[in-house]
Amino acid sequence: MTLTRSLFTGLALLSSALLGIAHANDDSPGLTMMGTTPSVPKNIVIMIGDGMGPAYTSAYRYYKNNPDTEEIEQTVFDRLLVGSASTYPAKISGYVTDSAAAATALATGIKSYNGAVSVDIHKRPITTIMEQAKKRGLATGIAVTSQINHATPAAFLTHNESRRNYDEIAKSLLNTDTDVMLGGGKRYFPAKLIQQFEAKGYQYLSDFSQLETASSPKVIGLFADVQLPWAINERGAHKLSKMTSKALELLSKNQDGFVLLVEGSLIDWAGHNNDIVTAMAEMDEFANAIEVVEQYARQHNDTLMLVTADHNTGGLSIGAEGEYIWKTDIINGVSTSPDVIATRALKYDDWQTKVSDALGFKLSQNEETQLSLARMQGVEVMTTAIKNLIDTRSFTGWTTGGHTGVDVQIFASGPASTLFSGFQDNTDIANKLMSLLPKEAKVVNQVKQSSTIDKRVEVNDIEVNEPVVDTPTLNN
Amino acid sequence: MTLTRSLFTGLALLSSALLGIAHANDDSPGLTMMGTTPSVPKNIVIMIGDGMGPAYTSAYRYYKNNPDTEEIEQTVFDRLLVGSASTYPAKISGYVTDSAAAATALATGIKSYNGAVSVDIHKRPITTIMEQAKKRGLATGIAVTSQINHATPAAFLTHNESRRNYDEIAKSLLNTDTDVMLGGGKRYFPAKLIQQFEAKGYQYLSDFSQLETASSPKVIGLFADVQLPWAINERGAHKLSKMTSKALELLSKNQDGFVLLVEGSLIDWAGHNNDIVTAMAEMDEFANAIEVVEQYARQHNDTLMLVTADHNTGGLSIGAEGEYIWKTDIINGVSTSPDVIATRALKYDDWQTKVSDALGFKLSQNEETQLSLARMQGVEVMTTAIKNLIDTRSFTGWTTGGHTGVDVQIFASGPASTLFSGFQDNTDIANKLMSLLPKEAKVVNQVKQSSTIDKRVEVNDIEVNEPVVDTPTLNN
Repeated sequence: MTLTRSLFTGLALLSSALLGIAHANDDSPGLTMMGTTPSVPKNIVIMIGDGMGPAYTSAYRYYKNNPDTEEIEQTVFDRLLVGSASTYPAKISGYVTDSAAAATALATGIKSYNGAVSVDIHKRPITTIMEQAKKRGLATGIAVTSQINHATPAAFLTHNESRRNYDEIAKSLLNTDTDVMLGGGKRYFPAKLIQQFEAKGYQYLSDFSQLETASSPKVIGLFADVQLPWAINERGAHKLSKMTSKALELLSKNQDGFVLLVEGSLIDWAGHNNDIVTAMAEMDEFANAIEVVEQYARQHNDTLMLVTADHNTGGLSIGAEGEYIWKTDIINGVSTSPDVIATRALKYDDWQTKVSDALGFKLSQNEETQLSLARMQGVEVMTTAIKNLIDTRSFTGWTTGGHTGVDVQIFASGPASTLFSGFQDNTDIANKLMSLLPKEAKVVNQVKQSSTIDKRVEVNDIEVNEPVVDTPTLNN
Repeated sequence: MTLTRSLFTGLALLSSALLGIAHANDDSPGLTMMGTTPSVPKNIVIMIGDGMGPAYTSAYRYYKNNPDTEEIEQTVFDRLLVGSASTYPAKISGYVTDSAAAATALATGIKSYNGAVSVDIHKRPITTIMEQAKKRGLATGIAVTSQINHATPAAFLTHNESRRNYDEIAKSLLNTDTDVMLGGGKRYFPAKLIQQFEAKGYQYLSDFSQLETASSPKVIGLFADVQLPWAINERGAHKLSKMTSKALELLSKNQDGFVLLVEGSLIDWAGHNNDIVTAMAEMDEFANAIEVVEQYARQHNDTLMLVTADHNTGGLSIGAEGEYIWKTDIINGVSTSPDVIATRALKYDDWQTKVSDALGFKLSQNEETQLSLARMQGVEVMTTAIKNLIDTRSFTGWTTGGHTGVDVQIFASGPASTLFSGFQDNTDIANKLMSLLPKEAKVVNQVKQSSTIDKRVEVNDIEVNEPVVDTPTLNN
């Protein structure tokens, strides 16, 4: 564990030395201004496509392809691919991870049980990269499309024995000193809690329209009761991109750099629903946010961008039922999410026309009969029937409403991005990222320390977290 | 096309120049003896796990894991991962490729229609890497577990408008001058055809026991009527490894190097059958063959090993039905392939015991009832019922009896292996490999040319194939 981390740091430092390039946090700011890429980043942007297994990025390429041209255009994922990662949780939870254990691995470098929010298998808190960054004077932030107290952001920011303790997690965010938190989850933040955030100097944004003008270095923005609306139902809104852009702007005010987590949370939710049209629109939303970070990184070449997934959801497949076909015209033709189509269908007598219009194709007699039967059983059955119809027409396959254990891809650019080439475990990603943080806390007095988890040791001259307990190291 | 190829070659030559390292085919054989890795290979071993999408290599890691240890051991695939590739065929065939179009892309660098055996979309032959290698004095060979005239080896060696023309393809192999051909397919090679091979100087091996002592530089070995037996039913036989090892030995006799294709053909066949236990055993067989090549490459550091898949088969998923579980103990406990278990079950009155013994677990009352009903409907239904039972118990998912369009992984080691890092199209793999062949034919007189496909041009100082027709270039 500690050995691995100091090894990576050692390699990074060695390459700095060999190339004669300064750390971005050294007292030589001129280097980045001059366009020379530093070997170690000042800023780190971690982007997680929740549930975005390899079939999603391949599918997205074909979904985005212009059928009128001969060429198949590369996507942002194709441009940035560098490696892949295994995602299995701690042994006690088998081979298939949930989002909490995966986020714990990515945030701390340690495997835990499914459901764990940055606590080890004995339920004791483990230091996260965000906490390390804070201690070293960096600003930290998150921008997500789920509630901000959902498993992935929670594991980066706080600790809890269960992801289901939403209220506890929401409250605990108050003591993390995170600079920017943008996403959904109003339900979990009662007025009194919001007042406490404000008392700590946070600007509270309760409406998305307030985002653009937000300028406080400390912001909490909650733009939905739970998750943000499906991207497919707000075409062109690009809320994740806008939150990402604002987070970058606010965090950039910290001269010592920042760590930002961006999550395309709803790719996973659409995957759980086995809903291909909603999933592809969420992929587009996430891809757009990646491009926002890419553009930022072009202007700030001391920024490492690391994009990955926490696991694969749904067992999506491009092609199904023995046919060598995947019909993106069907998927692209659907104008709103199946749940919205179903809800509308239940309201109107001429539902066939409404459904047909929303799907972008005329229903066959057989399809109309199936939907008619489903409609009588309520909105949930109707939604499922519509999704099945789209899957059948487009030859989309699914195996589960849960997760699967296939490795996920890693995409990266910027300083030290080559560290992530080839195969690694998800805990290795965290260990490498943590090895890239500056070794000294510059403004340690400003850092609010979060409780009992600060037992640290010095290994060589690198500050490294001692694992709080003798957790079995499952990563290879 | 030509531009891309000369670009890659240019890069390879540039890196040679910068590093001061000689081409392995230069007149400086001492370099490889001294242990310095050349920048361009003398030998190329292309290994294709047919149908081996990303879920297969992840699944294989967990299938091989020792449950008695805390650590999850890395596999040969983990060790060698460098990138991934898109697999879509020519536009006319949509986004999901078959094995013929994929092998055509990998062998020629040009996309074609599903079913095409190294012919373009106008059904005109396109030069393969094996033909280029022959012209440049290299030896060529294949070692596969399917019949040797099956789609993948066929596309590397010959040309046909349809993969289904098995007899034509078998006959055409006579004129390819391929040095070593090992696999199955006796059915397609009548005595008269075998005599023609012998008249051309080939040693014919009709039984696997003859393989070990084979020593002729030209060998055709057919060890099964069609495909070789499932690896799971011949545990420890490692026939693919032995064929690979012999092919390496025989091809090494050519001082100017060789190109060898090794295919784990039956991973795909097991995938089409949605048969997880047989698929995992075929993965193990293929992994073992990769290790044979790795060992060869350790002793011959002028050998590039490039491992990939042609596409993904079956829509396999690790975990299914909403559960975050994949039970490898179930899969590892099954002793023979489901078709063999089913055949045996139909023969005996006490079939329950036989089935239970072969599966490695006691059947529940419900399972016994299901199998009993299936048994009455014959061996095929019984086989399916047994596979379903294993899937249900192990939480294995499938979406199709055909292929899917997810990108496949690339694994590589040896000279120029870094060329394959990150994302690329499957045609790029072929173009890069062809760029690594030596530029001059050293023993051109010995090369038998195969018909009408030899229209060539000189581009810069690199010999490059001019595409025979103005085929739309679909690769990015």
